[in-house]
Amino acid sequence: MSGQTERAAWIAVDWGTSNLRLWRMGPSGEVLGEARSDRGMGTLKPEGFEPVLLDLIANDLLENGRLTVIACGMVGARQGWQEARYVAVPATPPGISQALKVDTSDPRLSVHILPGMSQASPADVMRGEETQIAGFLSAEPAFDGVLCLPGTHCKWAHISAGEVVSFRTFMTGEIFALLSGQSVLRHSVAASGFDTEAFTAAVSHVMSRPQALAGDLFSIRAETLLSGLDAVQARSRLSGMLIGAELAAARPYWLGQEIVILGEGGLAGAYRTALAAQGAPARTVDAARLTLMGLTAAWRALAEGAQ
Amino acid sequence: MSGQTERAAWIAVDWGTSNLRLWRMGPSGEVLGEARSDRGMGTLKPEGFEPVLLDLIANDLLENGRLTVIACGMVGARQGWQEARYVAVPATPPGISQALKVDTSDPRLSVHILPGMSQASPADVMRGEETQIAGFLSAEPAFDGVLCLPGTHCKWAHISAGEVVSFRTFMTGEIFALLSGQSVLRHSVAASGFDTEAFTAAVSHVMSRPQALAGDLFSIRAETLLSGLDAVQARSRLSGMLIGAELAAARPYWLGQEIVILGEGGLAGAYRTALAAQGAPARTVDAARLTLMGLTAAWRALAEGAQ
Repeated sequence: MSGQTERAAWIAVDWGTSNLRLWRMGPSGEVLGEARSDRGMGTLKPEGFEPVLLDLIANDLLENGRLTVIACGMVGARQGWQEARYVAVPATPPGISQALKVDTSDPRLSVHILPGMSQASPADVMRGEETQIAGFLSAEPAFDGVLCLPGTHCKWAHISAGEVVSFRTFMTGEIFALLSGQSVLRHSVAASGFDTEAFTAAVSHVMSRPQALAGDLFSIRAETLLSGLDAVQARSRLSGMLIGAELAAARPYWLGQEIVILGEGGLAGAYRTALAAQGAPARTVDAARLTLMGLTAAWRALAEGAQ
Repeated sequence: MSGQTERAAWIAVDWGTSNLRLWRMGPSGEVLGEARSDRGMGTLKPEGFEPVLLDLIANDLLENGRLTVIACGMVGARQGWQEARYVAVPATPPGISQALKVDTSDPRLSVHILPGMSQASPADVMRGEETQIAGFLSAEPAFDGVLCLPGTHCKWAHISAGEVVSFRTFMTGEIFALLSGQSVLRHSVAASGFDTEAFTAAVSHVMSRPQALAGDLFSIRAETLLSGLDAVQARSRLSGMLIGAELAAARPYWLGQEIVILGEGGLAGAYRTALAAQGAPARTVDAARLTLMGLTAAWRALAEGAQ
C-alpha cells in the first residue's frame, strides 16, 4: 500500500478455516481497502495469527495508541487464535460486549473476537454465521421468521424478537462435493450445469419419500450405465436429492414461516427453487456484505461505549 | 512357482476394480494355488488384461491346447477387458452359457467372462455379486428369501425359485468412508472401534425418523465440541445412522423374509445387529468362498456341456 493511503480507523476481519478477508475501515463505517489471504485458521498455530494480521495492516498501525480489530469466524475456535466461547441460544447474535479480548504481543493492537453460538439440544454450533445474522438484523431489526444460509454447511435459524431462537446445521454442501467429486457417482455427474426440471423432480421425490434416499443415490450411476443419463441431469438430480433431504429435515423451520435466504449465486437460487416448488416462497438477500455489516454493528457499539 | 507344481485344469478369476484374485484349480474343483494382484480393472487398458493374466498362469499353460479361464467382476465392464453385457432380472444368476468368450491374442487361452445383472426400474446394476449369489445358490438351491451383501456398495437381492427377482444397491460403505475420513466429521470419529449401544440407538432413531437424517449428521460434530462425545461412540453412531437409512429404504426387501447376510467380520455383524434390533433375525454365511463356488458352478456346466 502506498503512503498516500488514508489510515484505517479500525479493521474488520472474517477469519475462516481456509481463508481470511480483511477490510480497512474509515471512521464512518466506509471501506477504505480490502485484503484477502489464504492464511485461514486451518493453516495456523495460535502464535501464527498475530504476525499474519500485523503483516496485512502494517500501514494502519499507530506509533502510539491501539488500532481496533474486530474479527469473527473460526479464528475464535478452540484450535484458533484464542477461544471465544459459544453463546447459547436463545440469544441475540453475540455483540462486542461478549467478544473475547485477545492478549496480543504487540501493544499497538486491540483485537476483539466475536463468539459463535451453540445449542444444547439438538446439539449444534455456528461460528461466523452469527455475525452474518447480526448484519442482517442491523438492516431488518424487526424480522420474524427463518433465515437460510446455504454453503458447505447450510444453517437454518429461527429468528424472533431480535434473537436466534434455535438453529440447525446441514452438511448438504460438503456431502454433495464428496459424492459428486469422489464417489462412484463422479463418473456420472457433470462438473457444472443445472437442469431445473431434474432438480425439482428430485426434491419432490425425496421430500415425499425421504426413507428412499439411500437407495436412490446409486440409481444415478445405474441409469448412466443402462440408459445414458445426461451428466447435467445427473448433477441436478443429485443436488435435488440432497437439498430435498435437507428440506424434509428442516420442514419445522420453514413451514408457514417468512423465509429469507442469505446467499447469492447458483446455490441460493437452487434453495429458492426447491422451496418454491414446495409452495414456500423465499426472499434472497445478497450475503456478501452481511458479515461486514455485523462487524460494523459491533464496532459502533464499541465506539458508543467508549464515549 | 516350482516345476513340481501340479498343472491347473482351469483358472478361476475374481477381477475387480482395484484388485484381482486368481485360483489355480484342479480337475475335481480343488484349489491348487491362489494368487492376488493389484492390477485391478481400474489400472488397466483393454490390451493390458491378457499380459497380466498370462503372467499369473505362465506355468499352467499348455503347449498345445487351451487353458480354460472363467472370470467375473469389473473385468467385464465397458471399461474392462471386453464388455459382458448385463443379464436383466428376473433371471437366474448368469452362468457359462451367457458368458462372453474373449478374443485373446494368445491361442493357448480360452477366457470366459460372466456378465453382471441389471434392473430397469429402479435402475440398478451389479458385477461380481451375481457370481457370489450363484455360489450361494449352488449350496442352497431351494433358498427363498433375501440376500444382503455388505460392502462398499451393499446389495440386497430378492431370491425365489433360483432367480434374482429384484435387487437394490446402497452406497452406505462408500458414504461412511467419505464422511468418516474426509468430511468435518473426521475430527469427531475414531478410526476403529464399535459401541453396540450407540450403533443400535442410531439405527432405531433413523429408521423411525428417516427424514431427520440430514440434520442429525452434524450433531455428531457439535456434540464433540460441546460435550466431548467419545470418538468410538461417534463412529458407531455415524455407522448406525447410515445403516439405519439403508434398512429404512430396504424395508420392502427384508420385512417378513428369510434373510441371509453374505459376509464376514465386523460389517456383516453390524448389519446383523441392526436387523436383530428391528426384530428381523438374519443368518450369516461366510462370503469368502462364494465367488469361487459360483465360478466353479460355471466351470462344471462348461465341462458337462463339453462331454
